[in-house]
Amino acid sequence: MKSWYCEKQSPGTKYCYEARRIFKKTSKSQTIEVFDSKENGKLLVIDGLLMLSERFEFPYHEMLVHIPLFSHRKPRNLLIIGGGDGGSVREGLKHRMVNQISLCEFDKDVIEISKHFFPFAKRSFENRRVRVYFQDGLDFLRKSDKHVYDVIINDSTDPTGPAAALFTGEFYDLAKKCLKQDGIFCTIGSTPFCEKGIVNKIDKALKSTFNHVHHYLAYVPMYQSGCWSFALASSEAISLKKRQRGGPSKEITCKYYNAKIHTACFQLPEFLHNQLYGKYT
Amino acid sequence: MKSWYCEKQSPGTKYCYEARRIFKKTSKSQTIEVFDSKENGKLLVIDGLLMLSERFEFPYHEMLVHIPLFSHRKPRNLLIIGGGDGGSVREGLKHRMVNQISLCEFDKDVIEISKHFFPFAKRSFENRRVRVYFQDGLDFLRKSDKHVYDVIINDSTDPTGPAAALFTGEFYDLAKKCLKQDGIFCTIGSTPFCEKGIVNKIDKALKSTFNHVHHYLAYVPMYQSGCWSFALASSEAISLKKRQRGGPSKEITCKYYNAKIHTACFQLPEFLHNQLYGKYT
Repeated sequence: MKSWYCEKQSPGTKYCYEARRIFKKTSKSQTIEVFDSKENGKLLVIDGLLMLSERFEFPYHEMLVHIPLFSHRKPRNLLIIGGGDGGSVREGLKHRMVNQISLCEFDKDVIEISKHFFPFAKRSFENRRVRVYFQDGLDFLRKSDKHVYDVIINDSTDPTGPAAALFTGEFYDLAKKCLKQDGIFCTIGSTPFCEKGIVNKIDKALKSTFNHVHHYLAYVPMYQSGCWSFALASSEAISLKKRQRGGPSKEITCKYYNAKIHTACFQLPEFLHNQLYGKYT
Repeated sequence: MKSWYCEKQSPGTKYCYEARRIFKKTSKSQTIEVFDSKENGKLLVIDGLLMLSERFEFPYHEMLVHIPLFSHRKPRNLLIIGGGDGGSVREGLKHRMVNQISLCEFDKDVIEISKHFFPFAKRSFENRRVRVYFQDGLDFLRKSDKHVYDVIINDSTDPTGPAAALFTGEFYDLAKKCLKQDGIFCTIGSTPFCEKGIVNKIDKALKSTFNHVHHYLAYVPMYQSGCWSFALASSEAISLKKRQRGGPSKEITCKYYNAKIHTACFQLPEFLHNQLYGKYT
């Protein structure tokens, strides 16, 4: 008999994948599972929520990392909060200009399990430009020096779960403190088709800290509705009209991100534009 | 006990919605079902495939209709092939410049059932600008005069099902014959994340008939992956940089489409650009 991994996306919606569980561990704070699926490669599931599938993680990680890095003129020092699966590190490493990536992951098991099951994670964490800190993201920023990072990325779990502290004004204030004056902060958001309030809540909290906030979208088939939001925030203005650096095309090889997507992703559907900024058309 | 409507999107993927079936009929060519779902309103299911949900039909219909209509300078005469649920008619009627919409639907039952269950369908078909023909799309075009329509839209079921004839060179040749010289043809495509070959197949067939072919995307949460493709084809060049008509903002009220989306939707993710046109970045 076939076995299925089914996830309740909301009380009345389930997405199911033919898959068998090949690993389960309850770490200090969460339950981590790995499934092997028929169509989507391995699945990483934390506390019953699908974090990534091997087949469809690429738009998520590429858009979370290349949008802020290409919006910055000279990103040298990158901090990723969360991201223990190594996908964001992998994308950050594609930028030769980035000479240090610090990853702050609360749960050591997420990294160890990812390194075991996902080859890209193993490669990411073996790179000499990468430093890993097993700490709480908020604590890490509290203890960090001022004006250290060019780009800080929040690659945590959902804003409604245990990572809720990474979506608060306090966290954004600390991120701003640790960014250089021309630094850029980028965070995951939510699915605006299904969870309307969350994107507005993130917007409001970001705007209480940063002068400039821009939301953008990408197709991420592994999450409900297939539409996932991100937000870019900064003290100085960011041009969305074109990316700040071109770079040799051989530098960056992507499956989703490109220079045209870099500007197109900021154009929001009418309902979301309306919800965030008022009527557009 | 809760009842669920589950649909196999592919052999290893199912999407399930809490819903109960409230109608079923086998018409002359297909099985039509209506479900009432907890979260997504009523669902129209044809031959076991979800065609629309009340909650998420808006991006599909808006993007299928407003992209070609706003790409044309003076769309007066619109033909929709398929579209018996009335959603595309509803969007076409928003354009005051359009003075006639012909809808050619093979299956009369689809229209009658939609009128009964979906209030927007009832309103669409009661409008005096709308004419309905119960014919096969291919036959209808064969018998039509030359150079009659400004815009022709293919709003059929999936290219792999009984509507396969509406994705062939023969159909595109007939559509071109019935379009005016500056006419625009628009067709639904597929989900490029999951069914890679189909978009290329449509592209190839369209290019054998039309000089200009452009693919575009929209978030459509009711279909697998949430990403759905469309294609615009024409004999004369179409500018994608801006829409051809502005119009008073009160004319068109949309939940998804707007002027910025009009240009952004043509920017394709790298893998799809690569697949269709070669390497981009």
